[in-house]
Amino acid sequence: MTDLGTAGAGAVLRLLLDGHPRTRAELIDLSGLARSTVTGRIESLVAAGLVVPSGEAASTGGRPPARFRFNPTARLILAADVGATHLSVALTDLTGVILDQSSTPLNIAEGPQIVLAAVARAGRELLSAAGRSTADLAGIGVGLPGPVDHRTGRPNHPPIMPGWDSYDVAGHLTADLAAPVLVDNDVNIMALGEHTTEYADVEHLLFVKVATGIGAGVISGGRLHRGAQGAAGDIGHIQSPARTEPCRCGNTGCLEAVASGAAIAEQLRAAGIDAATSLDVVALVRAGDTTATQAVRQAGREIGTVLAACVSLLNPSVIVVGGSLSQAGDALLAGLRESIYARSLPLATTELVVTSSRSTPDSALRGAATLVLHHALGW
Amino acid sequence: MTDLGTAGAGAVLRLLLDGHPRTRAELIDLSGLARSTVTGRIESLVAAGLVVPSGEAASTGGRPPARFRFNPTARLILAADVGATHLSVALTDLTGVILDQSSTPLNIAEGPQIVLAAVARAGRELLSAAGRSTADLAGIGVGLPGPVDHRTGRPNHPPIMPGWDSYDVAGHLTADLAAPVLVDNDVNIMALGEHTTEYADVEHLLFVKVATGIGAGVISGGRLHRGAQGAAGDIGHIQSPARTEPCRCGNTGCLEAVASGAAIAEQLRAAGIDAATSLDVVALVRAGDTTATQAVRQAGREIGTVLAACVSLLNPSVIVVGGSLSQAGDALLAGLRESIYARSLPLATTELVVTSSRSTPDSALRGAATLVLHHALGW
Repeated sequence: MTDLGTAGAGAVLRLLLDGHPRTRAELIDLSGLARSTVTGRIESLVAAGLVVPSGEAASTGGRPPARFRFNPTARLILAADVGATHLSVALTDLTGVILDQSSTPLNIAEGPQIVLAAVARAGRELLSAAGRSTADLAGIGVGLPGPVDHRTGRPNHPPIMPGWDSYDVAGHLTADLAAPVLVDNDVNIMALGEHTTEYADVEHLLFVKVATGIGAGVISGGRLHRGAQGAAGDIGHIQSPARTEPCRCGNTGCLEAVASGAAIAEQLRAAGIDAATSLDVVALVRAGDTTATQAVRQAGREIGTVLAACVSLLNPSVIVVGGSLSQAGDALLAGLRESIYARSLPLATTELVVTSSRSTPDSALRGAATLVLHHALGW
Repeated sequence: MTDLGTAGAGAVLRLLLDGHPRTRAELIDLSGLARSTVTGRIESLVAAGLVVPSGEAASTGGRPPARFRFNPTARLILAADVGATHLSVALTDLTGVILDQSSTPLNIAEGPQIVLAAVARAGRELLSAAGRSTADLAGIGVGLPGPVDHRTGRPNHPPIMPGWDSYDVAGHLTADLAAPVLVDNDVNIMALGEHTTEYADVEHLLFVKVATGIGAGVISGGRLHRGAQGAAGDIGHIQSPARTEPCRCGNTGCLEAVASGAAIAEQLRAAGIDAATSLDVVALVRAGDTTATQAVRQAGREIGTVLAACVSLLNPSVIVVGGSLSQAGDALLAGLRESIYARSLPLATTELVVTSSRSTPDSALRGAATLVLHHALGW
C-alpha cells in the first residue's frame, strides 16, 4: 500500500507505537540503525504527520534534544464490516481505536456496486462529521461474509454473495476513496479484532464464529494464518462424525449442516417450534425453551468434536466463541467444552481457555482496522 | 543459547548466509545498521570463526575494501535422531549439510542416562574422525519419539519412553558436551528437515508421519508451529469417525488405534497373516499381498478423513507423508487422496500437493540440525 508514511519508516514507527516520546539518540540506540537513516525516517514520518515533535528531553548542556511521538490521529482508517444483511462502518485512529461508527441494514445480494457505494457513502459521512476528508485516510479495511483472496482483494466463489465472485473490491474502493484497501473474510477480521483488543499477548488462538454459518480464524505465532489460498479456518465443512445431513456445499454431514444457527432453527421447526434464524434460537434459549436449549447444547457437542481435532492439531491457548449463536450463552459453551475435554490429549487442554467473545460486535470493525495497520507495518 | 557468535550478530550473519562475500559498505547498505554496529558485529563473527575475510573488492582507489563471507564449517552441529529402537547421529555444517553420520540399534526404554551417553559417545566419535572437538560445536539438536516441551528440553509424559518423563535432556547433554541443546519431538524435526531440504519456499506445509504411531508437524508461515504446550501436530488421537477401537491413550477410535502401522499389523494378524510391525506390513504390500494392500489403503482413507479436516483448518500447499508405512507407496497415498478430495472444499485443494517424503531417512537429522540453526538466528 502507499503506506503510513514512506517505505522503510516501519522500524522507527514501530518503536514509537507504544506512545512514549523518544529522542533521535534513543531511536538510534533502540533500532541499531544509522543516524542518517533514523533522521531521514523521522523527517518522512513528520512530513506525513504520523510523528510529531513532543516537548524536549532533559539536556546535558547546549540545545535540548527534540523528542518525537506517534500521532495516532494524524491519519485515519476506514473499517467496514459487510454482513449478509447489514453494513457497519467505522472511522478509527491509526491504532484501531474507533472514533465514530454507523450501521445500516443492507442485503449483500444487492451486489458489489450498490454495497460498495454504500460503504463509500458511509465513510464520507463519517469523515465529514469528523471534519476530515478522504485525503486523511491511511487505508481501508473491509470484511466480507465469504471466502476472499486476501492478496488480490477479490471474493472467491462466495456462496451467499451473488454477483461478487472475483469482483475487484479493493480496486473499486481505491478508485472511489483514493486509499489502499485490504479485504478479508468476516471471521478473519473478527479473529484479528478479538486478538488485538483482548488477547494481544496470546500466541496461539482460535476464534470460532457460530451464526447462520460456522467458520474459524486461526492466530498462529501472533499472526493470522490465512493458508495457501486464504481458505484457512473453514471448519464449517469438516465432517461431523456419523451425520448425514445434506449441506449447501454439496457434501453431507458438514458441521455447518448439523450445528449452525440455521441448522438448529431447522431442527426446531421440524419439532413444531417457530424459529427462522440464529437470533430466534437465541431468543428461545433465553426464554428458557427446553427443546431449543437441548438443541444448542447438542450443537455445541458437535462443534466441540471438530474443535477437539483443531486442538490436537494446533494446541492453542485460547478458543474464543463469537457469532450470534454465542449469545445463547452457557448451553453452547458447555456442549463445546464437553466434547473438547472428552477428545483432546490432557497436555493440550491443561491450560486451554474456552470462552465467549468479549468484544462483539465491535471486534469485526477493530479487526478490519487492524488489517490496515498490520499491512502498513509490513506484518 | 551461547550462540553462533555473539548476541545481535544475527542480522549481519543472516545477510551472509547466502554464501556471497560482501564488503562492510554493502552490509551497511543492506541492513540499514550503523557503520560502528556492522564493524563490531563483523569483528565478533570473525573472532568466532563464523565469517572469514574473502579476497578484496574492486577498489575505487586507495586500499581495496575487504570482503567477508560466511564460513559454514567454522563450527559444527551435532544432530541426533533418537527413535524407539535406533539412534542416528550426524555431524553437520552450520547450514545443516551432513558431513558424517552413524547409526546403531538402541532401545529408548534403556532410559535417558544410557541413551544420552550413547548420543554423546557417538558425537565424540564423529568429531574425532573429523579431527574436531566439542569446542567446535555450535549446538546440539535432538529429536525424541514422544511429546517434548521445546522450551525446557524435557519430555512430557512420553508414552513409549519409560524413565524419560520430565528428564532434563538439554541439561544432561549440555553438561556432557558443553554446547547448547535444542530438543523437539521426532515428527517436528522430520517436518523441519523436509521443509528445509525440499520445500524451503513453501509457506504452509503439513508433514505426516505414519509408522508405529501417527503424528504431524505443522509449518505455518514458513515456521514450525509448536502450539502453547508444544503439543501441536498430535493428530494420532483425533477421533476416526464411527470407529471404536481402544487406544493406548485411554480413549477409543483414535486415528492411531485404527490406521497406524501397529494397528494394521494387528488387523492382519486377526486375519491370520503374520505381521508384527509397520515394516512387516510394508514388506507384505511390496510382495503383493492383497489383504495387506487393502488394509493399507483403508488406513489411508481413515488418515485422509482426518487430514481433510486439517486441510479445511489450515489450507496448506503441500502434505508430505513420511514414516515407515509411507514406504508402502501408492496404496497409502491413494487412500489418503481419496478422502482428502472427497471431504475438502474445492478452493483448498485446487493446488494442494499430497506426496511422499523425499528425504527420508536423513530428514530427521537435517531437521535436528535446523533446530540449532534457527535458534542461533533468533527464529
